[in-house]
Amino acid sequence: MSDDDQELGITESKEHSPGDWYAEVVQKAGLADYAPMGGFIVTRPRGYALWEAIQDNLDGWFKDTGVENAYFPMFIPEDYLEREKDIVEGFDPEVAWVTQGGHDDLDQRLAVRPTSESIIAPYLSQWVRSHRDLPLRVNQWNSVVRWEATETKPFFRTKEFLWQEGHTAHATDEAAWAETTLRLDQYHRLYEDVLGIPVLRGRKPDHDKFPGADTTMSVEALMPDGKSVQGGTSHHLGQSFADAFDITFADEDEAERTAYTTSWGLSWRAIGALVMSHSDDQGLVLPPTVAPKQVVIVPIWQEDTKDDVEQYGAEIAAELEAQGVRVHFDDRDGRNPGFKFNEWELNGVPVRFEIGPNEVEDDEVTVVHRPDGESTVEDRAAIADRVHDHLDEVYDKLYDAAADRLAENVREADNRADILGTIGQHGGYVKAPWCGDQDCEAEIKDQIAAEIVMVPLGEDSAARAASELEGERVPEPDHDGEDCAICGDEATRTAYFAKSY
Amino acid sequence: MSDDDQELGITESKEHSPGDWYAEVVQKAGLADYAPMGGFIVTRPRGYALWEAIQDNLDGWFKDTGVENAYFPMFIPEDYLEREKDIVEGFDPEVAWVTQGGHDDLDQRLAVRPTSESIIAPYLSQWVRSHRDLPLRVNQWNSVVRWEATETKPFFRTKEFLWQEGHTAHATDEAAWAETTLRLDQYHRLYEDVLGIPVLRGRKPDHDKFPGADTTMSVEALMPDGKSVQGGTSHHLGQSFADAFDITFADEDEAERTAYTTSWGLSWRAIGALVMSHSDDQGLVLPPTVAPKQVVIVPIWQEDTKDDVEQYGAEIAAELEAQGVRVHFDDRDGRNPGFKFNEWELNGVPVRFEIGPNEVEDDEVTVVHRPDGESTVEDRAAIADRVHDHLDEVYDKLYDAAADRLAENVREADNRADILGTIGQHGGYVKAPWCGDQDCEAEIKDQIAAEIVMVPLGEDSAARAASELEGERVPEPDHDGEDCAICGDEATRTAYFAKSY
Repeated sequence: MSDDDQELGITESKEHSPGDWYAEVVQKAGLADYAPMGGFIVTRPRGYALWEAIQDNLDGWFKDTGVENAYFPMFIPEDYLEREKDIVEGFDPEVAWVTQGGHDDLDQRLAVRPTSESIIAPYLSQWVRSHRDLPLRVNQWNSVVRWEATETKPFFRTKEFLWQEGHTAHATDEAAWAETTLRLDQYHRLYEDVLGIPVLRGRKPDHDKFPGADTTMSVEALMPDGKSVQGGTSHHLGQSFADAFDITFADEDEAERTAYTTSWGLSWRAIGALVMSHSDDQGLVLPPTVAPKQVVIVPIWQEDTKDDVEQYGAEIAAELEAQGVRVHFDDRDGRNPGFKFNEWELNGVPVRFEIGPNEVEDDEVTVVHRPDGESTVEDRAAIADRVHDHLDEVYDKLYDAAADRLAENVREADNRADILGTIGQHGGYVKAPWCGDQDCEAEIKDQIAAEIVMVPLGEDSAARAASELEGERVPEPDHDGEDCAICGDEATRTAYFAKSY
Repeated sequence: MSDDDQELGITESKEHSPGDWYAEVVQKAGLADYAPMGGFIVTRPRGYALWEAIQDNLDGWFKDTGVENAYFPMFIPEDYLEREKDIVEGFDPEVAWVTQGGHDDLDQRLAVRPTSESIIAPYLSQWVRSHRDLPLRVNQWNSVVRWEATETKPFFRTKEFLWQEGHTAHATDEAAWAETTLRLDQYHRLYEDVLGIPVLRGRKPDHDKFPGADTTMSVEALMPDGKSVQGGTSHHLGQSFADAFDITFADEDEAERTAYTTSWGLSWRAIGALVMSHSDDQGLVLPPTVAPKQVVIVPIWQEDTKDDVEQYGAEIAAELEAQGVRVHFDDRDGRNPGFKFNEWELNGVPVRFEIGPNEVEDDEVTVVHRPDGESTVEDRAAIADRVHDHLDEVYDKLYDAAADRLAENVREADNRADILGTIGQHGGYVKAPWCGDQDCEAEIKDQIAAEIVMVPLGEDSAARAASELEGERVPEPDHDGEDCAICGDEATRTAYFAKSY
């Protein structure tokens, strides 16, 4: 390997140094660079294209289910932020404050939004007059800032991050439950059907809920290094924001009632989970669903075969493009095929077509899958059909590998030593009976930095009943009535312990 | 008119109090509300949908012409902002500063981006190594903040506004000129083909260029009240940013050369121009190109005809929807047809279908155009075809009215008194020979707050040569060699004076 290749290729090992490996993939595959100020990143076009793919999917589903986009100011006056006490306590320590405009000090500090409940709720209050105005659903795609002093990890830990935040108001508690669950279902679907990542879903323990929420639900994705990623959250806010901001409506019987609200958000962590789940020591691996280029065609020729090979390749590219496949024909003269293979592997193009004089001669195409290098030969005549099968196969390979990893990494424990030992040895999730007391989690947290990432929804809960998804990804509580694994008191629920990003 | 109607309808007159009328239309048509802090607005779903329509068009054109989206941090460290001296001088007085993060004071103030040249240029410098990396084009859709202490006017004057900002680097001056012109062409196309607004184009006088730019070009739209709106700007930045931020490349001959850069932006002012151009005393008027709903079907029935009329309406709605028409069937029971007519007029739906027992009986549809109330009767069988003609006709009516207004409001003057008198009496544009001295403009500005909004591009300029658009919208300089209308010195160009937003 030449120096040039060294500089271009991935040098860190995913298995042995996952943190350094991740940072290297993000930079060398051109997804993001570090910004001059700590905690911020520059999202490059290849990284932003992944965000656009996520947006296209979610935004379409939102609009199909009654959500409209809007835009609220990026600043929130301090006295607005103070109107809901839990929000203040929850976010005050990590707010970035604007204190000067031009050459003047401001009369009142403005918070750069850490989340927008406090500026949206007052408008929901104005816009909601009657039961006919409900449900009211708005969403915005924007960035928020949370001034946390942790090491920067692109897409996982940054002071500013891109996300969407949905905010809704409803006439009844049941309707708000249905909304909270519908949005979690959509996040679930994004991971399973678009990002190739199976997720578990449940609710957060009470002490880890969104400030002011009745219930916070999340989807959780297991990373190959054994840590869990909170992949999206959906909050049933009950009536706390409606009370604080006076969101009331005249009901059908003319009575004035207080609304129920929800909020739900998914951030560019989804990009982080995507990159970390599928990529390898050759670089980025992407499912075809979100890959900016799904197929790259690399021609292999000598001078005397160049014209034939290039014409053959160009025709195939045109045929695929007409089929709606995102294809790139790499006919650069100055680079040899080996260089091109490495470069497109680094950049995560899911399928590579290799065509040389033999393929032209035999009317064939050699098809190589990025995740495992599997190589097959297809008839030229059938390639425009078969390419879709190959794209599906690549998706399935990525999904199945992640699903196997998840299935192997949910373990059980019924005492403290086992929880600590199992997570210490294997990572992943450990299910244990739990009394519900935060102190019991604290003991585990102090010793191995693992926490309760979720608690299964109760069988009879409205959230569970409202979900259209069933089966193993919606775990059931199965430790009711046993002893808490940590303190020995009666367990009232099942806790999923894991280290997390 | 009942109190209820009064509250819903527009009460101000576009002709007599255009400012109040505009503010009322924006609020009552549900486009935007005022935020709690002065200078900020809340963009409601109907307003944001217009921004999405603008984005969909421009973003597609950008991507078709080599632009990729990216995302840069919303904050810029003060020392970065200071690296290009003109940017500092130009924007420093209107920057919002973040000085505190959480409970701590920051070591260095962070500017909330007023524009992103200063944070993007350093990365262009990193990403550009060789002539093979050029041209390099990135764009971002975001919001910027400029702390100007003026009265808030939604979409026209707000401290935070939504826009896109494109930034490119090129190997040659000619390539940068072509880029600057291409983007101005795309803005031109947006106004003419999507927003129904004819625009003039030219360059800004030197004293009104973007800080650090060689040349700033703009498209200018005439509002019905006689003022001009700067509808989008495209800047040839020459080598000033490339010098300040060291954007150099190894050229084909191995020599290290300095790149040329451009930037170009279009903001939600385009929404303001759209609303102000076409709307009337009944409320919002939108061209079908951007209207969230293009056709509303209002059924008119008595109890005994209700079922037939509603079925007829629902069938027509389904047929239009299958054709890709954005149609709404307003079958609300609690509102009478008159109320519905008023509401949809207020909200700017371009075409209304009225269907009652007569239409059902005769297999017809009554079609009403929003801009002028013109009513025609169409055969039911042909309606799915004819609807497209009606949508086109509505677009043409709006465009033609605006084009007539523009044609009537470009006047000439060759002395100070005429400039002042003509603008004072008619508004609009006044063309006059000008020496190029800012002091001459200042005299006009002081007296009637009119300024030079544009100077035609020289016949032989690269910008003019590169444009694919020709004809009357790209005015030619025709006062070269005459006497300056203000000072009497030799004129070197033609100035377009106007009051402006």
